[in-house]
Parts: sequence; C-alpha cells; structure tokens
Amino acid sequence: MTEFATIILAAGKGTRMKSDLHKVLHPIAGRPMIDHLMASAAQLGPARTVVVVGSGREQLETALGDRAEACLQEPQLGTGHAVQQAQTSLDGFEGDVLILYGDVPFVRAQTMRAMLDRLHAEDKPAVVVLGFEPEDALQYGRVIADADGRITKMVEHKDASEAERACRLCNSGLMAARAADMFDLLARVGNDNSQGEYYLVDVVNVANADGRHSAVVVTDDPREVAGINSRAELARAEAQWQDLKREEAMANGASLRAPETVFFSWDTVIGRDVTIEPNVVFGPGVSVADGATIRAFSHIEGASIGPGCEVGPHARLRPGAVMEKGSKVGNFVEMKKTVLGEGAKANHLTYLGDAEVGAGANIGAGTITCNYDGYFKYKTVIGPRAFIGSNSALIAPVKIGADAIVAAGSAVSRDVADGELRMVRAEQLVKPGWADRFHDTMKKKKAADEK
Amino acid sequence: MTEFATIILAAGKGTRMKSDLHKVLHPIAGRPMIDHLMASAAQLGPARTVVVVGSGREQLETALGDRAEACLQEPQLGTGHAVQQAQTSLDGFEGDVLILYGDVPFVRAQTMRAMLDRLHAEDKPAVVVLGFEPEDALQYGRVIADADGRITKMVEHKDASEAERACRLCNSGLMAARAADMFDLLARVGNDNSQGEYYLVDVVNVANADGRHSAVVVTDDPREVAGINSRAELARAEAQWQDLKREEAMANGASLRAPETVFFSWDTVIGRDVTIEPNVVFGPGVSVADGATIRAFSHIEGASIGPGCEVGPHARLRPGAVMEKGSKVGNFVEMKKTVLGEGAKANHLTYLGDAEVGAGANIGAGTITCNYDGYFKYKTVIGPRAFIGSNSALIAPVKIGADAIVAAGSAVSRDVADGELRMVRAEQLVKPGWADRFHDTMKKKKAADEK
Amino acid sequence: MTEFATIILAAGKGTRMKSDLHKVLHPIAGRPMIDHLMASAAQLGPARTVVVVGSGREQLETALGDRAEACLQEPQLGTGHAVQQAQTSLDGFEGDVLILYGDVPFVRAQTMRAMLDRLHAEDKPAVVVLGFEPEDALQYGRVIADADGRITKMVEHKDASEAERACRLCNSGLMAARAADMFDLLARVGNDNSQGEYYLVDVVNVANADGRHSAVVVTDDPREVAGINSRAELARAEAQWQDLKREEAMANGASLRAPETVFFSWDTVIGRDVTIEPNVVFGPGVSVADGATIRAFSHIEGASIGPGCEVGPHARLRPGAVMEKGSKVGNFVEMKKTVLGEGAKANHLTYLGDAEVGAGANIGAGTITCNYDGYFKYKTVIGPRAFIGSNSALIAPVKIGADAIVAAGSAVSRDVADGELRMVRAEQLVKPGWADRFHDTMKKKKAADEK
Repeated sequence: MTEFATIILAAGKGTRMKSDLHKVLHPIAGRPMIDHLMASAAQLGPARTVVVVGSGREQLETALGDRAEACLQEPQLGTGHAVQQAQTSLDGFEGDVLILYGDVPFVRAQTMRAMLDRLHAEDKPAVVVLGFEPEDALQYGRVIADADGRITKMVEHKDASEAERACRLCNSGLMAARAADMFDLLARVGNDNSQGEYYLVDVVNVANADGRHSAVVVTDDPREVAGINSRAELARAEAQWQDLKREEAMANGASLRAPETVFFSWDTVIGRDVTIEPNVVFGPGVSVADGATIRAFSHIEGASIGPGCEVGPHARLRPGAVMEKGSKVGNFVEMKKTVLGEGAKANHLTYLGDAEVGAGANIGAGTITCNYDGYFKYKTVIGPRAFIGSNSALIAPVKIGADAIVAAGSAVSRDVADGELRMVRAEQLVKPGWADRFHDTMKKKKAADEK
Repeated sequence: MTEFATIILAAGKGTRMKSDLHKVLHPIAGRPMIDHLMASAAQLGPARTVVVVGSGREQLETALGDRAEACLQEPQLGTGHAVQQAQTSLDGFEGDVLILYGDVPFVRAQTMRAMLDRLHAEDKPAVVVLGFEPEDALQYGRVIADADGRITKMVEHKDASEAERACRLCNSGLMAARAADMFDLLARVGNDNSQGEYYLVDVVNVANADGRHSAVVVTDDPREVAGINSRAELARAEAQWQDLKREEAMANGASLRAPETVFFSWDTVIGRDVTIEPNVVFGPGVSVADGATIRAFSHIEGASIGPGCEVGPHARLRPGAVMEKGSKVGNFVEMKKTVLGEGAKANHLTYLGDAEVGAGANIGAGTITCNYDGYFKYKTVIGPRAFIGSNSALIAPVKIGADAIVAAGSAVSRDVADGELRMVRAEQLVKPGWADRFHDTMKKKKAADEK
Repeated sequence: MTEFATIILAAGKGTRMKSDLHKVLHPIAGRPMIDHLMASAAQLGPARTVVVVGSGREQLETALGDRAEACLQEPQLGTGHAVQQAQTSLDGFEGDVLILYGDVPFVRAQTMRAMLDRLHAEDKPAVVVLGFEPEDALQYGRVIADADGRITKMVEHKDASEAERACRLCNSGLMAARAADMFDLLARVGNDNSQGEYYLVDVVNVANADGRHSAVVVTDDPREVAGINSRAELARAEAQWQDLKREEAMANGASLRAPETVFFSWDTVIGRDVTIEPNVVFGPGVSVADGATIRAFSHIEGASIGPGCEVGPHARLRPGAVMEKGSKVGNFVEMKKTVLGEGAKANHLTYLGDAEVGAGANIGAGTITCNYDGYFKYKTVIGPRAFIGSNSALIAPVKIGADAIVAAGSAVSRDVADGELRMVRAEQLVKPGWADRFHDTMKKKKAADEK
C-alpha cells in the first residue's frame, strides 16, 4: 500500500465561535475536535501529518506537540493556497496526500481508506473527491459524476444550472491525490474569482484541462462530513457523538435508564450488566467494570470502578480514584487519588483525598481526609476493616491501623495502631436550663427588633 | 363472566440483552417488566397465572414467588410448544386462556378484556388474535381479516403476497381461546418449517381446517404490543412509560418545569400544586403531598413528603424518610428511616439516619447522626424546637430534649435534657505569629523543592 | 406616535391548571407568565396598563402591585365583556388600546408595534386583529381577508364553510383599536349565541355593519400567540423559551456541552468563552462573566460569578453569592450572602453563609460557618490568604485574620489574629487493643442475634 500524508487545514479564524480558544481545539466528548480526526487517521498509519495553521497558531502548535508538523498559512488566500503551504514540509515525499479539515472531525477511517483505495484503482484518477448526499443540499457545491464515479464537473451552487442543482451529490471538500499531482495541479490554480482566493476544488478542473479525470467516493453517512462553525454546531456534534456512544454501551450490555441524560467521554469504557441511572457525567479516563451500578447525579473523571461497585447517587470521583471490587461510594462523597479497597464503603458526605483505604473498611459520614496544608499534599492510610467514626478529620500524614476504630467527631493527628481505639473528644459541658433562658432572652430581643 | 388463566411466555434466552439478569426481570420505572404485565392482568382477576420458564429459570421463579405457577419449557421448540407446557398445570381448568409475553409488558387490561369478550361474542370464534397496525409493518406476520374481524388467513411476512403485505394489520402474538380448544388445537400443530419449531400462530390454521373461524381484535395503540429484546428497546419502553406518567402528573396539577428530566417510579404519587424542578429522580415508594416543592438534583426513594414541604436542591431521601407538613430538607442532606417533624429543618450538609426529629427543630449545617458502630444501628431522638449547632455529631443512641441546644462543633454522646445546653468543645489554643512563621518555612521549602 | 394603553385579560379561572395559584402567575423561566408579556409591552412605553381580573383577584393584584391598574370582571360574560370592564378605568383616555391576554405571554414588542402602526396606516382601519397561521388550524376561528389584509369576515370554526376552513389564517384574539372606537363598538356587541357571552371578535362585525373596515396583521412566528391552559402547555412554553435562550447563549460565545440540559432564568447573563457542563440550573439574578466554567449539577440563584471562576460540579450558589475573579467553589459547597475574594477556594463539602472571604484564602473541606443561633444571623470575616483547616466550624460573629491558620477540626468561637494559629482540639485518647476487644464482643452479639 502506498504511504500517505494527511494535510489538515486548520488556519481559519473560527469567528462564529466567538472564542479565544482555537476552533479545532474546542472539545467534543472531552477531546479537542482535531484529535477525533487525527485518531481516525491514525488507524490508517499516515507516514506524515501536516497541520496548516494560521490564527491562534501558538495555541494549536502547543496542543499538537510533536504529533504533527505545523506549517503556517499567512495571509490566508483560500483552501488551495492552504494546502500549498504544506508543500515545503512534504518536499521529497513520494506518497499520497489526504486533505482533511480540523473542523470536520468525524470522518471515519474507513472513508479515508476508501478515498485512498479509489486513487489507486485501475483507472488511476488524478484526484479523488469525497462526496455526500445531504438531506438538504442547500448552498453546497455539486459534484457532477457518471455512474462509475468519474467526475464530469465540479460546480459551485451559485454557478449551477437547474439540472445541476437537482443533483444531490455535494462536495465535502475532502480530497486525496498523489502528492506530486496535488502540488503540480495547485501551482496552476488561479484566483480569478470574486473573493480573489485559490480554491482547492479547482485542481479537478485543472486536471480535466490536462485530459486527466477525477473520481468521487460517496459516504453512506453524510453526518461524518458535517463541519463545525459555531457553538450550536459544536453542541450538535456532541449530541451526535453521544448518541452513538450510548447505543454502543447498550448494545454491549449496559442498562441506561435514560440514555439521553448520560454523557460519556471519548474514552469511557463500560462493562456488561452495568446499570447507569439518569444524569451521569463521565469525564475522560474512566473505566467501569461488569456489574457496577452508577447512580444518578454522579460525576466521574479519571476513575477506575471495579466489578460490582456502587457509585452515588451524587458522588464525585476525580482523577486517581480507584474502587476495588464491591466497594461503595455514596452520596455527597468526593474521592481523589484514593484507592478504596475491596468491599470498603464511604457512604455519605465524605472527602477522601490522597488516601489508601483497606478492604472492608467503613468510612463514617462526614469524614474528611485533611490532605493539604496550603503548600503540600499528604497521605492518609487506613487499614483493612478499620472503622472511622462519623464527622472525623484525619490529619495527614496519618496511618490508621487494621481493625482500628476512630471515635466519632475525632480529629486524628497521630497514627492509630492496629486494633486500637482513638478518641479525640472534649468533656461534655452541661448547662441545665441554659437553653430555656437563652430562648427567653432571644425571643424578647427578636420581638423588640420587630417593633 | 368465564374465568380465565394467563399463560405468560418467558422462556427465551434474551441473548441481545447481554445480561446475567433474566430479560423479563429487567426493570422499567423501577419494576421488573413482567410485573407491569402481571399488574395489568391482575385488574381482570385471572383465576390462574402460569409462567413458562426456560433459561434463567431459578432467577425468575425466585422473583415470581407464589404469584404465579412456573412450568418449564426444555428444550425450547417454539411458541406453540411453550404454551403446550402449561397444559399439565392447567389440567382440568375449564375457563379461557390468555397468552401473554413477559417481554411485551405494556398490554393494557382493557385490551385483554376486549380479547376475552370477543371470544364469547355471538359468533364464538375458536381463537382471538390481538392485531396491531404499526407505523412501519416491517417483517411482522400479517392478519388477513374481513371487515367484521373474522380472520381469513394468518401469513408470515416472507410468505405473503404483495397484496397481503399491503395490509397493515399485523399479528402481535397475543391470543385468547378456551383452554380446551387451545390445547386441542396445539396438539395438532406441526413443526414442518425451516426452524423445525411449533408456532402458536398455526392454531388459527388448524381451527380453519376444522371449519372453525378465528377473530382479530385490533389495539388502538400499537405501542402496547412493543416487545423488548435489547437494552435500547428497554430504554425506549422506559421513555414511553415516563412520558405518560409525566403527562398524568401535569394533568393532575403538578408543575414540571422540564418534564423530560423528571423520572418517576411505577408507584410514585404526586399531589396537586406540587412543583418539580428539572432533574429529579424518584425511586419506588414515594408520595408527595399537595403544595410540596422538589428542587433540582434530588434523588428520592421510599419517602413520604408532606404538604408544603421543600426538598433540595441536591437532597437525597432514602427509604423510611418521612417529612411532616412544612418541613424542609436542603442541599447535600441525606435522610434515611427518619421522621422530620412539622416545620423542622435540615438545610445543609447533613446526614439523618434512624432518627426522630421533633416539630420545629433546627438541624444545623454539617450535622451527622452517628447511627452505626459497624455492627448495629442506633436511634437518635431530637425533641421539638431543639437546636442542633452546626458540625455536630450526635452519637446514637442519644436523646436531645425539647428546646435543648447543642453547641456548634459538639460530639454529643450522652442525653441532653429539655432546655439544656450541651457543649463539647476543647480549649481554644492560641499561637500568635505561628502561622506567619509556618508560611515563611513552607514557602522556602516549596521554593527549594521547585529548584 | 399616538399613546396607547394595554388591556390585559386575566379573569379566567384557569381550571385546567388545577392550581391554587392564579394561572397568569405561573412562572416560565422563573418569572410569572404575565410579567413576560408586560415586559414586552413595556418596551413600547404604554401610557396605561389595565389588567382585567376575576378569579384569584387578590393574588393577582398583590403580584401586580402598582405596575398595573386592576379592574374587576364579575360575573364573567365573555371576552368582549371583559374588555368593557376597562372602560371606567380608561375614561377620558384618548389614545389606542391594545388587547392582550395574560396567558398568551410570548407576544413580541415588534408584533404589538406592528398592530398599532397598522391602526394608523393610511386606510385607518377601525380594528386591527393579529392573525397567525398555525401548522394545524384545528378549531381556531378564521380571518377571511384580502391580499391587503382588509378583513372580509371573521368566522368561528363551527360556522365556517369548507372554503373558509381551507383558509389557514386564524384569529389570535389580540386586537388594537382607538379606545373610543373600541368601547363604542363593544357597546353594540350582543350576546345572542349559545354561550350567552359577549365576544370581543364581534367588534369587527359591528364595525363592518357601520361600513368601516378592519385589518389583519399576521405574525411570522405562530408560537408567539400560543396560549397556556394546562401545565403541559406551560411546560412546552418553558421549553420553547429555553431553546431560544440556549441558542442565544451559544451564539454569544458560550459552550453548552448539552444545551437541552441547561435551564436558564429570564434574566441570566452569560459571558463569552463561558463553559457550561450538562445539567445546570440557573435561578433568577445570575450573571456569569467571561471565561468562567460552570460544571455539572450546579444550582445557581442570585449569584455573581466573576471572570475565570470555576463552579461545581455539585455546587449551590444562593442569593448574595459573589465570586470574585478566578475564585473557585467545588463539590457539595453551598454559598449564601458571601463574597469569595479573588482566587479564593472552597473546594469541598462546605457551607459559607453571611461571610466575607479574603483574596487567596483556602477554605478546607467540611468547613461550616455557623451563622445562625435560631434567632439571628451573624457574620464571618476571613482575611486574605487565611487557611481554614478541614472540618472546622467558624462560630459567627467571628473574624479570622490575614494569613491566619485554623487547625483542622477546630470549632472557633473567638477571633483569630493576623498570622496566628488557632487550634481547638482535645487530647488524643489512646486505648490500645480496645477496638479488637470491641470487635470480638460485637461479633458474638451479632451471631447471637442472628440465631
């Protein structure tokens, strides 16, 4: 198979997003949209990845790191001009080029593959265009092609005849060509149009003038070429992604009582016989093992949830939360960088940060691990089967032994040995009748205030 | 009226659910789907209820308990064969049989009634079939009938002529017949088909051959015969159920600001002038009296909410939570097996478990009832008009008297008398300048670490 | 421009709402529906606002205060009769009248303006009717008009010929006329119909009989004349309002990952590059500055959120919450009448009420401001860069100095000076082996109980 380079156009201003963040870095399912696209391309193993940048260049280059070569388009004189900027980067590259768009993130690997394959079909087209048939063809440019997909003509909507407009096959803008062909054709594309721009689509016409034909590959799912130009379109792309992911989770054996209220991240892994109640949000980095239950209003990121675990309702798991088999995190409980051992429970109003909790331990309601002194974080280690009484503060670094008991309401600042009881509690000060006198005084004061 | 038995088919493997839980036990609105069906049938008072079981037999038998007689189909040789398994159980039964499907849970009592009534109409059909007219007839078998509902022919989709396919009346699979007729007809059904199965639908043809006619009853709501074969279909059934319930709650005088975000259980009772904010989840066993307000992000199960009460936002009521008139449970508050007296308040960050709270009592923010010692649960009793200061731990068993005051931050382990003040608080240790020195030290350490 | 008075009909019983609350006071987006209407009318500066009241009069008059003159319709003899009741109030008023309906709240100012303008067009119609073209014309009365909008005939659906029913232009009920004309025409409207009521629409026919013509103005958005008669219609109106507001927020540069799960109030202000996660509810009085992030499951009312702030997930901001630049409120945190200074943080399980928190202060997990003694509220002041250790209770009135430290688990009832450490903690009581013995005893007891 011939090697290929992707050229991803991402130089546009994205004005309609009204954002300081580069358009292609806006996230879908918790991942920059350009990363969705690059992940699909990566399945085919491109030899090179060139991103054409312009506005917001630094932001984009930082985000891409060494995953792509950036080349600058400045000024921005059209899509053809944009692709031309990659020529220097690809000097000497003898494979194919696949032209993608950073704001058209959902193109599937199989579609890219089909374009490249078509390029090497027997009839050797000069250029392969990806076409799509939208519900409503609107203002899209049309691809006029014969039954074999050989392109007769590419025509802008405004220049199209009535017959041409009746054709529903539209130009997605995506293209494949041999690198040498692409740059040779582009060099001969002019800018004699009302915008004074160099249009990528014109390479088809230049090839035609050379007596070479181009071909169209048509996607069976027009949603994959939807471009994102506004926050509303971004939200629609998110919804489209979520719907597919929900269907997938259910098909794999998870019950989603109200799928439309569950939001996954791009990398969420959901097991079999997992139950997810309504209103659950997954951030990146979550795996949920078989038979676990995620109850309503839970927010989960960077967490590993073991088999048969119960989470929520109203739980928050943050990065580094690890729940071992059959453990339980209940309402208004936050867990961060903490391992909760097999069968351990933290059922109510608790903060566990930088902690290790042994198997079978019971963390009482209102327990707080005091893991931060304003400068550094410290660790709390709780032994297996330990019982932490309610409303306790564990002042890290601190270690609670196996089977140990911390009495309710204790602020524990020193280690507790295995099997030991630790109680930190002042004397019970009793003032009989004091409350009755207080009520009398305050009621009078309140009455006086109200006059 | 002739007595009748229901025969509920539930022997299928439910492979597409990918679940260890029996398909018909998967819940809709918090109740196993087969229970929805049995509850509808129960409205008509069946003399007998027979469930045909196969895969996952033990699970199903346990769930059914003595509510139904289970009879085993093993091996599984088709729907006709399944019904035949009930013959021994119904030996000597002289009434009618109504054939239902455990995975078709929404058939209404009125529809079942109509089928049984039709069976005893003047023309005495041998068999009554429930027909439906779906939006899209797809691959369903067709019922070819005359204007009076007398069936001319039952035809599988694959065997249907074009004219027959144009007929939109489809076979739901539900049937009614006299028990004697049903088993007699079934005995003569063959399995000469590509699957080698005995099909229930063939009883109509056998009756025809005998010169007896069958009749079709057509449902006016095709949704009631929708079968559930996958988690996605389960989610759609849930959505359908929720929509009806939401409409009902609104029609009865409840305001749902965003009905699509409120999830009821099968038995939720909602009063008049109840306001429900967006994103509320009801588990089983909840009643909400007139004029109550349920605010956003509340999760409520097994709770009784009195008139004019306020719940949430972000509240969790668990089984045994009873809120008396005008009481209030606020954000990040959990209540379990607890009675909150008239006008009492628990507004913030509180856990009330196994408690009785008197009328007009005020439970401060961060209060925890310590009701568990790792082995047993203990009770907290709080008197009327008592004031529990914030961040207190009430270590059960413990009793706080009427009008008593618990000072903020106290861990109370002994009873507090009426009108008494209880304070459990250590000395205020003052270290002037200590914090300044600490900040200096730590900043230096931090700076050193960063080098 | 001629001055005008609005006459808002609001005397109906609203039976289908099944509510003790007056129908027009039911809220949409947190604001009584009649206020939406009055706010639109207010954009045109009406000289007078008269509301015709009937059932639930006191409730409505209280809600309206001095924003409108109420006049009573008793008994209620039809829409024409209702408008007539305003005559005494408007005695001597020489401008126009615009007839509106309290339960038709979404009529836009531009539509009202168009009606009044039409009244003063060259052809001087006696009456201007607002027409609309619904998807499904149902039972609405029809407006039969010529191409210039001159009305030939107003006809009730039941009296309409087939040709008239084919006309999709329907009568919204809204009208404009010179006050003198309106009351003169109304005086001649009869009640010779099956209901024995005086219908407002008949003024058009009376004017016709006088040889004067009327005109129709047609709205381009039929949704603006949708009436609200049930809670289900109220919910649909809310949904319609929310959709528009979400689109507006996104168009202005906010990212809503799942717009359908975000609920705004009528006055919510959302800046640019604001990110709103799924499931966020805004009550009235909220502004969110540029670059802020509102995470999932947050409930926000009466709060000002500064630039770059982070809120939630699972946060609750109540009236008077002010977050200054870059401050952060995390999960299970409630804030009320509290200013959180620049860069200050309250990340977990905290209640801040009636407090001032200095810039850069850190409020540890489980901190509670004890602001209430059952009678009065008191203030907590926390200095800049102060560090409040976890699980502390700050017993107001109390002041914590700049850079001061409160040790974890302290209940602080006296002021803490700048740079001071305050620790309120009892001795650590150690009982080696006690827990082991306790476990032995309890396990035996449990085993005995289970026999």
